[in-house]
Amino acid sequence: MSSSKLQKEIENLSKQARSASYKLATLSLEQRNKALGEIASLLNKNRAQILEENKNDIKTAKKNRLSAAFTDRLTLTDKYIDSMIDGVKQIIDLDDPLNRILEERTLKNGLLLKKVSVPLGVILMIFESRPNVTIDAASLCLKSGNAVILRGGSDALYSNKILAGIIKTALEKIRIHKDSVQLVSTTDREAVNLLLEQEKYIDVVIPRGGYGLIKAIAEHSKIPVIKHYQGICHTYVDDEADLKLAEEVCFNAKCSRPAVCNAMECLVVNEKIADKFLPSMIRRYISAGVKIFGDEKTLAVAENYNKINNKINTADELVVERAKQDHYDTEFLDLIIAVKVVDSLQEAIDFINTHSTKHSEAIISKNQKSIKQFMDNIDASAVFANTSTRFNDGFEFGLGAEIGISTDKLHARGPVGLKELTTYKYLVFGDGQIRA
Amino acid sequence: MSSSKLQKEIENLSKQARSASYKLATLSLEQRNKALGEIASLLNKNRAQILEENKNDIKTAKKNRLSAAFTDRLTLTDKYIDSMIDGVKQIIDLDDPLNRILEERTLKNGLLLKKVSVPLGVILMIFESRPNVTIDAASLCLKSGNAVILRGGSDALYSNKILAGIIKTALEKIRIHKDSVQLVSTTDREAVNLLLEQEKYIDVVIPRGGYGLIKAIAEHSKIPVIKHYQGICHTYVDDEADLKLAEEVCFNAKCSRPAVCNAMECLVVNEKIADKFLPSMIRRYISAGVKIFGDEKTLAVAENYNKINNKINTADELVVERAKQDHYDTEFLDLIIAVKVVDSLQEAIDFINTHSTKHSEAIISKNQKSIKQFMDNIDASAVFANTSTRFNDGFEFGLGAEIGISTDKLHARGPVGLKELTTYKYLVFGDGQIRA
Repeated sequence: MSSSKLQKEIENLSKQARSASYKLATLSLEQRNKALGEIASLLNKNRAQILEENKNDIKTAKKNRLSAAFTDRLTLTDKYIDSMIDGVKQIIDLDDPLNRILEERTLKNGLLLKKVSVPLGVILMIFESRPNVTIDAASLCLKSGNAVILRGGSDALYSNKILAGIIKTALEKIRIHKDSVQLVSTTDREAVNLLLEQEKYIDVVIPRGGYGLIKAIAEHSKIPVIKHYQGICHTYVDDEADLKLAEEVCFNAKCSRPAVCNAMECLVVNEKIADKFLPSMIRRYISAGVKIFGDEKTLAVAENYNKINNKINTADELVVERAKQDHYDTEFLDLIIAVKVVDSLQEAIDFINTHSTKHSEAIISKNQKSIKQFMDNIDASAVFANTSTRFNDGFEFGLGAEIGISTDKLHARGPVGLKELTTYKYLVFGDGQIRA
Repeated sequence: MSSSKLQKEIENLSKQARSASYKLATLSLEQRNKALGEIASLLNKNRAQILEENKNDIKTAKKNRLSAAFTDRLTLTDKYIDSMIDGVKQIIDLDDPLNRILEERTLKNGLLLKKVSVPLGVILMIFESRPNVTIDAASLCLKSGNAVILRGGSDALYSNKILAGIIKTALEKIRIHKDSVQLVSTTDREAVNLLLEQEKYIDVVIPRGGYGLIKAIAEHSKIPVIKHYQGICHTYVDDEADLKLAEEVCFNAKCSRPAVCNAMECLVVNEKIADKFLPSMIRRYISAGVKIFGDEKTLAVAENYNKINNKINTADELVVERAKQDHYDTEFLDLIIAVKVVDSLQEAIDFINTHSTKHSEAIISKNQKSIKQFMDNIDASAVFANTSTRFNDGFEFGLGAEIGISTDKLHARGPVGLKELTTYKYLVFGDGQIRA
C-alpha cells in the first residue's frame, strides 16, 4: 500500500472510531451486555471456523521457525475458546462502570454539580501474539462504552480476523455501530506509527507485550499511553518475621508462576535473621530449580552453613552465585532470584525504592510499626504485608477482569479493570446563574 | 555552562527531588500546614525585598522592550503579595488530600485490601511570566506531599529566586527536606529538554502557559504531562430556551472575562428561534464591543433585521462579518465571537463535538429531555445547563485552589486541585496467604 493511501486509511479508521464512540457512550447497560452475550454465543457457534483460521497462523509460525513457546501462545483449542467465552460472560456479570455519580453537591449559588463516570472514548490496543486479547479487550471496551481499535501481532492475523469478524456480526445483530470495534488488518508496520499520531481521534493507547514494545510506543505516541512495564518485585523479610510464614510466602511469590509480572524477583533479608532464615529458604528454592544470585553477605551465610553442614551431608550444599549489580535491576521472569541482605528496615526501604519498578512489594513482619513504616515509605502500585506479591491482580482484588497492571501513577495504577477504562465529566445544572 | 555539566546538574536536582519526595510523603498534615504557615509569614515579612527583586525583572523587561501587558503580568505590588498570602492561607484550610481511604474490603481469602490516596511523587512545573505561580504551585505541591521542581520564565528570574528562597527558608525552619521545592535557576533553554528526560525521577509535568508551550512540552516529554490546552467553549441556545435567560448567560460567558479559557468562543443557535433571539443578543454583544463572525444563516438574520429596522433607527444596525471556517476552531481570548445557526439539537451536538476542545460546553433549554441528550452526548470536562461556561473553575466547583483546568481525559479532567495531585496505592494485609 502506498504511504499516503495507508495514512488515509488509518485516519479514516480513527475518525470512524471517534464517531462510533459518541453512540456507544449513550448505550444502556442492557444493550452493551446484549452485545457481549451475542459475542459469547457466536464464539460458541463458530468454534470450527475459529480453529480452522488459527491453523493458518500456526502453519505460518512453523514455516517461519518461530519458537515452540511462541507457537504455543498462538494456538487456540476448544478449551481455550471455552475460557474466552467464560471471560465474556464474567464481564457481563460485572457492575456498570458508567454513569456512577462520583460526587454530587449543590453550590452556594444554587448550581447542582454532579461528577459522573463516562467512557474514555476511543482506545487503541496494541498487542502481541495471543489472539484471545482480541476478545478480552473488545469485551472490556464495549462494557465500558469505549470504541476500540485493535492492532494485534501479524503472526495471529488469521485468528484475529475471524474473532474480529465475530464481534462485528454480534454488533450488527444488536444494531450497535459497526465501527465500535475495528481491527487494523494491514500488517504494514508503518500503520502503528500512523495510529500513534491520531491524537485528535484516539484518547488512550494501551500496549500489551514486552518491555521493548511498550517503551517504543510510549516514546513515539502523541496519545497518552497506559503502560504495563516490568515488575521487579521484592519481598523483605524483617528481623521480626514469622520465618516459617516468610518461607511459604517467598516460595509462593517466586515459584507459583515465575513468568508473570507480579512474581517476586528479589528477596531482601534483615541481617539479624539471615543465618536462621536463609539456609532453609535457599534449600527450598534450590529444590524447585531456582537459581540464586546473592550479595556478599548472602554468600557468607551460605558458605558458613556449608562449612558446618558439609561435615554431615554434602548433597545438601547451598549453591549461591555472586550477584552482579545488574541482577538487582532485572526482571528474570524465570526460576532465578536475587538475594540482598540489609542491616535495617530503612536500608530495605531505600534499596527497594531504588531498584523497584513500583509494581508489587512485600514485607514479612510481626511488628505493626515496621509494617506501617514499610507501607508508608514504599512507592508501588500495591504493597503487601505478610502475603505474596502474586496477589496484585484485578481478579484477586475483586475488580473483575483486567486488561493489565499499570506501572504508571497517573490515572490507573495497578490493575486496569472496567473502572480504569472510564474518565469523568462534570454536569452542572443551573437556572440562569452568571459569574461575577 | 557546558552541556555535560548542565546535564549532571539537572540529573542531580531531579534525583534530589525524588529523595525528598519519599520524606514528604510521610509528613503529617500538621507539618505540611506548618510549612505553609511559615511561607505566608515570610512573604509578609519580606515584602520590601520581594518588590526590590521584582523591580530588577521589570527593568530588564523594559530594556528588552517587552509589551506593556507582559510587564504588567510580571509586576508584583503589595496588593499582589497580599493575594499570594491569602492563597497560601486558603490552601492551609483545605482538607488533607492524602491518606484518604478510597476503597476498603476483606477478600474471601481473608486479605484486607485498602486503596489509599498518596502523593504523585515529583512534579515538574513549567510556567511563563507570572511569578505568583512559584508560590501557588509550591503550596499546592507541599500540601499534597509532592516534591516540586519549578521552572519559571527567565523574565521573572529575580522574582522567582527570592520567592523560592523564602520557601526554602520556611522549609528549613520546619525541618522539611530542603529539596522538596527546587527552582531551576539557569536560564539555559536546554535545561527544559533535559528535565523532560528525567522520567526515572520525575512523575508528572504540568506546564502552564500558551498553547505553543504546552504542545512543545507534550511532544518532547518522556514524562506524562497534564495538559491545559485551549478552551473553545460553546453555548447552544435551544428552540425551547428561556431567551431572556439565554441572553444573560451568553453575555456573561463571553464578556465577563474574555481572556480566560472558560470564556465562550462560539454561540450556537437553533434556527427556530434565531430571528427572535439573535438580534437582541447581537445588539447586546455589540454594545460591549464584541466583534461578531456569523455563518450564512446568522448573516441572513442580521440582514433581515436591519432591513426592517433601518427604516426606524439606522444607528441600531447589526454588524456581523462572514465567518471563515477557521473562526470555528479559534480560541479568541478576546471580545470576538463566532455564531453558528443549526437546524436541530443533534446538529448542535455534532457541531460542538467536532469543534470543541472538550473544555466547557453549555445548553440553554427548558426541555429536560434535550438537556439530557446534550449532556450525555457532549464530550467535555464540564457540561452546563442554563448557566455560564465561566463556572468551570476549581474555586467555583468547591474544590479549593487549582493549578489549572485539564483538557486531558486521563487522570485529571477539568479543574486540577489537591486531589488531582494525588495517586493511590493498594495496601494489602495478610497472615500468610499464598496464591494457588
